Amino acid sequence: MTKTKIILFALFLSAQILACAQKKGQGNNLPKPLPQQLAWQNDELGVVFHYDLHVFDNKKYAQHRNRITPITDYNIFNPEKLDTDQWVRSAKAMGAKFAILTVTHETGFALYQSDVNPYCLKAVKWRDGKADIAKDFVESCRKYGVKPGFYIGIRWNSFYGIHNFQTQGDKAFSKNRQKHYNSVVERMVTELCTRYGDLYEIWFDGGAYGPEQGGPDVYPIIRKLQPDCLFYHNLQVADARWGGSESGTVPYPCWSTFPHPAWRPYETRSDNYRLIKHGTADGKYWMPAMSDAPLRGYKGRHEWFWEPGDEEHVYPVKDLMKMYVRSTGRNSTLILGLTPDPDGLIPEVDAKRLAETGDAIRKNFGEAIAKTEGEGKTLYLKLNKPTTANCLVIKEDIAQGQRVREYKIEARVNGRWKTIGEGSSIGNKRIHGFDNVTADRFRIRFPEYAATPIISEFSAFNVEDYLRDLAKPETATAKK
Amino acid sequence: MTKTKIILFALFLSAQILACAQKKGQGNNLPKPLPQQLAWQNDELGVVFHYDLHVFDNKKYAQHRNRITPITDYNIFNPEKLDTDQWVRSAKAMGAKFAILTVTHETGFALYQSDVNPYCLKAVKWRDGKADIAKDFVESCRKYGVKPGFYIGIRWNSFYGIHNFQTQGDKAFSKNRQKHYNSVVERMVTELCTRYGDLYEIWFDGGAYGPEQGGPDVYPIIRKLQPDCLFYHNLQVADARWGGSESGTVPYPCWSTFPHPAWRPYETRSDNYRLIKHGTADGKYWMPAMSDAPLRGYKGRHEWFWEPGDEEHVYPVKDLMKMYVRSTGRNSTLILGLTPDPDGLIPEVDAKRLAETGDAIRKNFGEAIAKTEGEGKTLYLKLNKPTTANCLVIKEDIAQGQRVREYKIEARVNGRWKTIGEGSSIGNKRIHGFDNVTADRFRIRFPEYAATPIISEFSAFNVEDYLRDLAKPETATAKK
Repeated sequence: MTKTKIILFALFLSAQILACAQKKGQGNNLPKPLPQQLAWQNDELGVVFHYDLHVFDNKKYAQHRNRITPITDYNIFNPEKLDTDQWVRSAKAMGAKFAILTVTHETGFALYQSDVNPYCLKAVKWRDGKADIAKDFVESCRKYGVKPGFYIGIRWNSFYGIHNFQTQGDKAFSKNRQKHYNSVVERMVTELCTRYGDLYEIWFDGGAYGPEQGGPDVYPIIRKLQPDCLFYHNLQVADARWGGSESGTVPYPCWSTFPHPAWRPYETRSDNYRLIKHGTADGKYWMPAMSDAPLRGYKGRHEWFWEPGDEEHVYPVKDLMKMYVRSTGRNSTLILGLTPDPDGLIPEVDAKRLAETGDAIRKNFGEAIAKTEGEGKTLYLKLNKPTTANCLVIKEDIAQGQRVREYKIEARVNGRWKTIGEGSSIGNKRIHGFDNVTADRFRIRFPEYAATPIISEFSAFNVEDYLRDLAKPETATAKK
Repeated sequence: MTKTKIILFALFLSAQILACAQKKGQGNNLPKPLPQQLAWQNDELGVVFHYDLHVFDNKKYAQHRNRITPITDYNIFNPEKLDTDQWVRSAKAMGAKFAILTVTHETGFALYQSDVNPYCLKAVKWRDGKADIAKDFVESCRKYGVKPGFYIGIRWNSFYGIHNFQTQGDKAFSKNRQKHYNSVVERMVTELCTRYGDLYEIWFDGGAYGPEQGGPDVYPIIRKLQPDCLFYHNLQVADARWGGSESGTVPYPCWSTFPHPAWRPYETRSDNYRLIKHGTADGKYWMPAMSDAPLRGYKGRHEWFWEPGDEEHVYPVKDLMKMYVRSTGRNSTLILGLTPDPDGLIPEVDAKRLAETGDAIRKNFGEAIAKTEGEGKTLYLKLNKPTTANCLVIKEDIAQGQRVREYKIEARVNGRWKTIGEGSSIGNKRIHGFDNVTADRFRIRFPEYAATPIISEFSAFNVEDYLRDLAKPETATAKK
């Protein structure tokens, strides 16, 4: 090597190092998750238990009617065999890492011992007015190592007369009642944030209206009293976003980031919620997407709440696995809606289905053929021997931001590299299916990235055919 | 006696007998009280205990504001020394024969264990949410032989959003909430009518709006479940009427009868409630008048509810005796408003004043100089010896209707009859004062009556001068 060559080579190296440093520097500027967002994405799978007065009315639930019709007799609430352990066991059997309870939903009835909202378990004869389902629920969660959170319904309250966060009427009385309601909400949130230990997520459906909209100021309370809790959400802030459907899936790609600090003001029904479904790769705000769906959503029903005769509408395992693959496998957290029956138990058919789904997840994704991790533009996965596989799982270390913008995957078959797929978003997890190949190596390359990709898992699986097909890129959404 | 004379005399006698029979026949056509109305008039004197959340807020009460402003923290309700025995003893010391409790007032908060209205004693921490003041109150009443009744405030409900019986807003939601509220009211009334034994009076302030006005249908419930209870009142029916002021008095005359079956639609503020104050002598409906006033109404205050610093506004005995004379002595039932303090006790100053008033009543009206009873156009009261008197008490047997239309009273002084007064309405009781006379006979004549007067008491007293003067006919109102 001549002196000139050495100098040139040194310059080249320096440039490379600089380029690398620049990429790393860019990485520092990327949005990063809060610890609770990171946990929420890593956990992948949770449940939300819906339970409210109308579960006990033996009628079909009609949401619009329910929102504007107070329950006549709240003493129908009488879950004689209530067993929150059984709820949480059922959820855990599917693999849920966290569970959320609707402590209030649209009737306004609170499933705990509130001292600020009389329309609560204090009011009923059941358990002599002393029951606290929030407490039972949290204790069961702790017992089984499932992280507890609360859904606090404040947007509708058929009892108190709240419609879309607002009292009815336009006189001083209505304004005073609005002020009172806001205060009640803030104090309920305070009760819920201080009585039950650390909460994993607090869910305000529809996005809590804040003082700017004449609503309660819940966000500062939660950030103060539960600083490590995922806040979902108000019109200014959201630690997560809705994935734009209640199908239990998101379309691909689904980025962890979003161009605004809150999503609710930017959801657009007119384009079928395109922005919140996809997010944006270069969004300035970390705001991963939730895929939610009720377990009882099969064959023409879509029921968050138990109703008589819905047993046949519990999704089959294959449908639930479709959700799993197309939510967690697309960088979205799946939250499945479960609903205890009037006895206070997750019905047997539901519990069985959850266990079967957990089995299917473990069976297909429990153990990789091989796995690796690494940092850089290219990553290799070496198999012990030529093995048939049809699915790759790729995870970014999203604590460092979502970096990959484009990836290509290849398999080495009989010594020759063969392209088997490509994509854009990876994020917390990408499950990428392809036709079965028998390979001894897989390779992933990142033609485009915002900062050096940091891959915490790159693994190969041979899953059931239907799962492979579900995990294949859909033609219409394969491109970012 | 000639034959002609005998025939004429016989004819005369027959005519007299016929005339008498006609008068008696007219008596049969007169409106008569229901047993509960009769008792209510005979009892003369009762109390109404006002107790509600805002007693505990340490603020001055402003009714208009209170009606449209929910109480922020209902756990201020904490009467640590609550003693309903002490309440009832205090009332009884004044001579109250019955007592009424505001089981709900304008906040909507119910002082019992309701299973249909969660905004009740179940909601508070006090006594672990198990207190039932309605029950305590009724038991104390029974213990002391005072007849218990309930005031059920349904016209205003600052919590639920009811203003003048109505929900706010004009959409389907408001209509549904109105329907719900009506149902809650009907079921509360049912609870109150079935849990506490026989009730003496149920008081709907402002007159319960019925189905015709979009309100609850409370009247049939009360007539069915408490057939012997005084119903006060709705827009169709009233067993008693308001006396047109909260002064604890009625003007004279005050007839037991009224031209309509309900009074609320006929109260006219423009003429200072003239019709309901006086009633009408020939009214077709039996509907005696209530004189109500709060004990704390002296020197520029008029407080049904305890508030800090009102001790000096407890009426002096003379003012209370004025009420007594000008209500019970004018055929009206006096209901005095008492209000327990935040400790749950009738304050000492109030209790003392009630006892002093009871003493004054007993001292002045406890024992007559002489008394008689009788039927006919003229009645004599014979004294054992010439005695100084300044007050006559006259009572009709109103079970037979209010018959007297005009009376004249005379005293025999030194053997000569001297006119000392005249009046129109007697009814349950007339207290008629006049300048002291020393007489050995009193006589009452009835120049005009609807049916033969039946006088159950005609008695003479020598009362304190101030009472005598209070009992004298007021110039402006002495004529019917």
